[in-house]
Amino acid sequence: MTTATTLKGQPLDKVTLESLLRRRMFYTPSFEIYGGVSGLYDYGPPGCALQANIVDAWRKHFILEEDMLEVDCTVLTPHEVLKTSGHVDKFADWMCKDPKNGEIFRADHFVEDVLETRLRGDKEARGLKIEEKEVDAKKKRKKTKGQEAIKLDDAVVQEYEEILAQIDNYNGEQLGELIIKHDLKNAATGLTPTPPVAFNLMFSTTIGPSSNLPGYLRPETAQGQFLNFAKLLEFNAGGMPFASASIGKSYRNEISPRAGLLRVREFLMAEIEHFVDPEGHKKHERFHEVEDIELVLLDRHTQLSGKTSVKKESIGKAVKEGTVDNETLGYFLARIHLFLKKIGVDQSKIRFRQHMANEMAHYATDCWDAELLTSTGWVECVGCADRSAYDLTVHAKKTGAPLVVRERLEVPKVTEEWEVDIEKKKFGPFYKKDGKTVEAAVLALSQEQREKLAKEMQENGKIVIDVPGVADGKVEISKDLLDIEKRKRTENIREYTPNVIEPSFGIGRILYSLIEHNYWVREGDDEARGVLSFPPSIAPTKVLIVPLSSNKEFEPFIRKLSQKLRVAGVSSRLDASNASIGKRYSRNDELGTPFGITIDFQTVKDGTVTLRERDSTRQVRAEQGKIISAIQSLVDGGKTWQDIEFELPIFQGQELEVR
Amino acid sequence: MTTATTLKGQPLDKVTLESLLRRRMFYTPSFEIYGGVSGLYDYGPPGCALQANIVDAWRKHFILEEDMLEVDCTVLTPHEVLKTSGHVDKFADWMCKDPKNGEIFRADHFVEDVLETRLRGDKEARGLKIEEKEVDAKKKRKKTKGQEAIKLDDAVVQEYEEILAQIDNYNGEQLGELIIKHDLKNAATGLTPTPPVAFNLMFSTTIGPSSNLPGYLRPETAQGQFLNFAKLLEFNAGGMPFASASIGKSYRNEISPRAGLLRVREFLMAEIEHFVDPEGHKKHERFHEVEDIELVLLDRHTQLSGKTSVKKESIGKAVKEGTVDNETLGYFLARIHLFLKKIGVDQSKIRFRQHMANEMAHYATDCWDAELLTSTGWVECVGCADRSAYDLTVHAKKTGAPLVVRERLEVPKVTEEWEVDIEKKKFGPFYKKDGKTVEAAVLALSQEQREKLAKEMQENGKIVIDVPGVADGKVEISKDLLDIEKRKRTENIREYTPNVIEPSFGIGRILYSLIEHNYWVREGDDEARGVLSFPPSIAPTKVLIVPLSSNKEFEPFIRKLSQKLRVAGVSSRLDASNASIGKRYSRNDELGTPFGITIDFQTVKDGTVTLRERDSTRQVRAEQGKIISAIQSLVDGGKTWQDIEFELPIFQGQELEVR
Repeated sequence: MTTATTLKGQPLDKVTLESLLRRRMFYTPSFEIYGGVSGLYDYGPPGCALQANIVDAWRKHFILEEDMLEVDCTVLTPHEVLKTSGHVDKFADWMCKDPKNGEIFRADHFVEDVLETRLRGDKEARGLKIEEKEVDAKKKRKKTKGQEAIKLDDAVVQEYEEILAQIDNYNGEQLGELIIKHDLKNAATGLTPTPPVAFNLMFSTTIGPSSNLPGYLRPETAQGQFLNFAKLLEFNAGGMPFASASIGKSYRNEISPRAGLLRVREFLMAEIEHFVDPEGHKKHERFHEVEDIELVLLDRHTQLSGKTSVKKESIGKAVKEGTVDNETLGYFLARIHLFLKKIGVDQSKIRFRQHMANEMAHYATDCWDAELLTSTGWVECVGCADRSAYDLTVHAKKTGAPLVVRERLEVPKVTEEWEVDIEKKKFGPFYKKDGKTVEAAVLALSQEQREKLAKEMQENGKIVIDVPGVADGKVEISKDLLDIEKRKRTENIREYTPNVIEPSFGIGRILYSLIEHNYWVREGDDEARGVLSFPPSIAPTKVLIVPLSSNKEFEPFIRKLSQKLRVAGVSSRLDASNASIGKRYSRNDELGTPFGITIDFQTVKDGTVTLRERDSTRQVRAEQGKIISAIQSLVDGGKTWQDIEFELPIFQGQELEVR
Repeated sequence: MTTATTLKGQPLDKVTLESLLRRRMFYTPSFEIYGGVSGLYDYGPPGCALQANIVDAWRKHFILEEDMLEVDCTVLTPHEVLKTSGHVDKFADWMCKDPKNGEIFRADHFVEDVLETRLRGDKEARGLKIEEKEVDAKKKRKKTKGQEAIKLDDAVVQEYEEILAQIDNYNGEQLGELIIKHDLKNAATGLTPTPPVAFNLMFSTTIGPSSNLPGYLRPETAQGQFLNFAKLLEFNAGGMPFASASIGKSYRNEISPRAGLLRVREFLMAEIEHFVDPEGHKKHERFHEVEDIELVLLDRHTQLSGKTSVKKESIGKAVKEGTVDNETLGYFLARIHLFLKKIGVDQSKIRFRQHMANEMAHYATDCWDAELLTSTGWVECVGCADRSAYDLTVHAKKTGAPLVVRERLEVPKVTEEWEVDIEKKKFGPFYKKDGKTVEAAVLALSQEQREKLAKEMQENGKIVIDVPGVADGKVEISKDLLDIEKRKRTENIREYTPNVIEPSFGIGRILYSLIEHNYWVREGDDEARGVLSFPPSIAPTKVLIVPLSSNKEFEPFIRKLSQKLRVAGVSSRLDASNASIGKRYSRNDELGTPFGITIDFQTVKDGTVTLRERDSTRQVRAEQGKIISAIQSLVDGGKTWQDIEFELPIFQGQELEVR
């Protein structure tokens, strides 16, 4: 258990980091001049570019790499669809209220807060140092309020810790019982909150002018993909397995969002729905490519036993041992890991945590979250759920649409069965008003009964069967009215409802975690300065152009250089302010720009420029064409800075200030 | 007046085109298996890729080219913000209702429909051919219903035509008067609809659990940009002019959407807010770059005189003559034109139409729409409005936030004024309870009065002023209580609220128009086939990979080729189906894929492949590296197909079918 650290292992000062993010407009509370609305944030230019680059990397890593079918479905969703999917009834959190001041709590957060406060009070009473715990993002409210140095029994401490380890596993009733049993009170009023009630997290609205079509803002992009399943399958020429994918906003009306970008009411999601044949234990043909990749796993059993210890093992082993249920689920866990690594997530700050039974969404049969460690604890950033055939089945049942795969069998399936043929022309007139009832009784006969009755028919020319409600409950049927025969049937088509493996990414949470993981502080001569060491491919802007001074001679060089960079597909910004070059570079390190180009008087003479690398602050000097192609290969990952230092002359000149 | 045509001038058969778009899943009604919801559509894989490529081109053409500050703000917007912006009160359409069957109409559409039906009936009665008119997208409902061959007086025909030419200019009351005056009835019931009432187009919802924060889904992305103005200005280091930009969904609860992608309730917008100093008539420093570009203009005066005739002239001339108000507005009209041209809009199907006074949104002082001609008439695809200082002013007034630019004056502004200094220590005690009233009277004195009183004070050592309600209405003030002096004041800072020029793009409408503009039919030996000739940079997928047959020998070549294309950043799809190569290419022409690569037995021998160009169906053959770099330069626009035919050997081989 350690406090949060920067990329370089320094203690992370969250206040300083947040001041940097605000100052550089990575993001900002929405409607701030109107007082803001909790859970809503706007991205400023660097945040917006960072988000776009993460999405772009995601599209390449998943959609392009695996030929997924991208769709863009509407956010507005009519009531009936989300009623069928189960969201209207089950997509809720437990809410309770202070009876006096009306304060509203999420019940699980309330229990956590009070228990954690008591545990800290206990530590204080025992004279122990209170360390920042590795807690969940959700568990960070009102640390101090109501905290008193009261020693608890050892058994009580253990009980509290076990409750906290499985806090996500309690339903509303159980949370209510915990509140009563442990006498949990709101510190502000000293009162017990009301029993938890379910609060549906969907935003509702009305579609059309006549107020008769209620709808919601989608809580996930998945439903649109499921509803289009039949069309997507056709677009894919019937081929299975395949995946659809979607990148778009989703909405959840959080009860009390207070964790910055980590718990918001409107957020960008990137979701994959991978449709797979449930027969054959969901093998994946590319599983061998990832089976040696090692993941840090926290399984369901460990948590239920009140612990949070992890094990690191290859995904191949985890699937083999049954920790992870099947290859397809395992394949995507590994692919998620590779994606997070690629965009610059700290490898020592990832774990995969399995959901406990009560914690899972109503549609899931298994679910693993990729969690990233931040200053507010472990944060769920990617969910990877096995939704089985749940969604396709409920929508097909509701609408009658065939959301199935029809597959030609290579080896036709031959079945042999006793069949009954009713001689309709005679049967009806013979039994008159009882005809339908007798027919139903005949059709309901089991295979065993049919076999027995066929023999009887052959021997007697007639049979007697039970038909409750007709005559005395026994009906005689003669040979000319009914034929019973054993027949072979050959099936060439197999019909099945695919299962769905769903990797679902919260882009905003990934973005925020990425910022923390790449943040560090460079100690300078005058003052310490923040640096955001994003990988070049993800950095909001790739190049800062810095003219030595505002000398007019530099202007044509600036114009040409930014033009050339644009053509090369490299985003750049100009800082032609009066600040010293050192100051301008420092300012820019805060924006995470990996490279800087200085234009100076030497440039005017021979066209060469210097290229500075953000993390090492080392520089090389060469003519512009070489510098630009060096930047291109640094951004696309073809070369490292070490390669460039080897290829181009090192520049030792000081960062001079000449006006 | 002509009927709609394809790219090659053929009559456009909309039914065939729509069948193609459905079959290839460009887009599809949302929730179709639930019966659909009008005005909501999902994009399938080709539509989604086409949309992404249009957005990407937009981002390069506008944001990157002009260093705009991109932001991403929330869709959820609290009531107060949109109340201030005027949308709660004014963002409405006029709605009327059939009193019997409850059918709901948009009042302007209702008037149009009935008048157009009568005009067609008149033509029929006169024995004239009824041609498809160049009508607005909105004007295409229920063409035939209620149409009878009744001849109208010439004067009536003219009156109807004049009404239609300015239909966008009527308010609800005027539309109601037209309905009564011309006795317009709903053909389905024969009844007059109810008088038009305003129907607000915003979707409403509630934010948070306590139901006390009403909100809306934003009807435009603009407000988020305005609210962040002060932060954006600071991010831009105070520099003016500058532009912010945003790409995101917006929502309008259309009364009765029935025009496919052209009138939807949820849509992607790309909006620019260009902030400019209102002094100096909104010059633009890059205007000279565009001034010779010729645009087709339909101004406000022409429409108000009941006509729709256009003139083609350079934007330089249009600004000079005052048709277009200022350079900044003109600059963006030209830039919009260039963008539409770049993505493949047919140059003969663009016009810029100016809004009439009543038609303009409540915030606009001038507005021009870029309209594209489609089979449903002229469609507004881009709006370019001058919003003046409207939005920043109302939000600043409401919140007290300083949404202004403070600019250091190069030449300080010197003013000279008579000022009054009250000797507070003595003044209050002297006048006691009347102190405040007397002070207010002193401060309210005009410059003229102050000058006169200063002289009086100097001469008499006291003055007498009118203070209604104190004593007898006259109050004497002595020299020791008050000083009146003329003083010079130097202002170094000028403070102003910027004006906003807003180019606003409806991506879905552009996408649909682009499809129609690039569609044509290739007459084949067996049957005619549709082709979508998108420019390579915009086409959903760039390359189709076609193995000659399912021979196993081709597989490593397919894998390597698609890998190489991916690395080169070129999107490709494989068609390894059993259909003939010709059939596979035809299928793909419908998807608008510009290039096809065939892998055949020659490939196995020497590694060469053929490259086919969609529009000419001509082919070249070369080794894979050359083919891939040819494709790259074709996609980025560096080379044309003619260049490639010149560089690489023509392939004359037939499209063989070998298994």
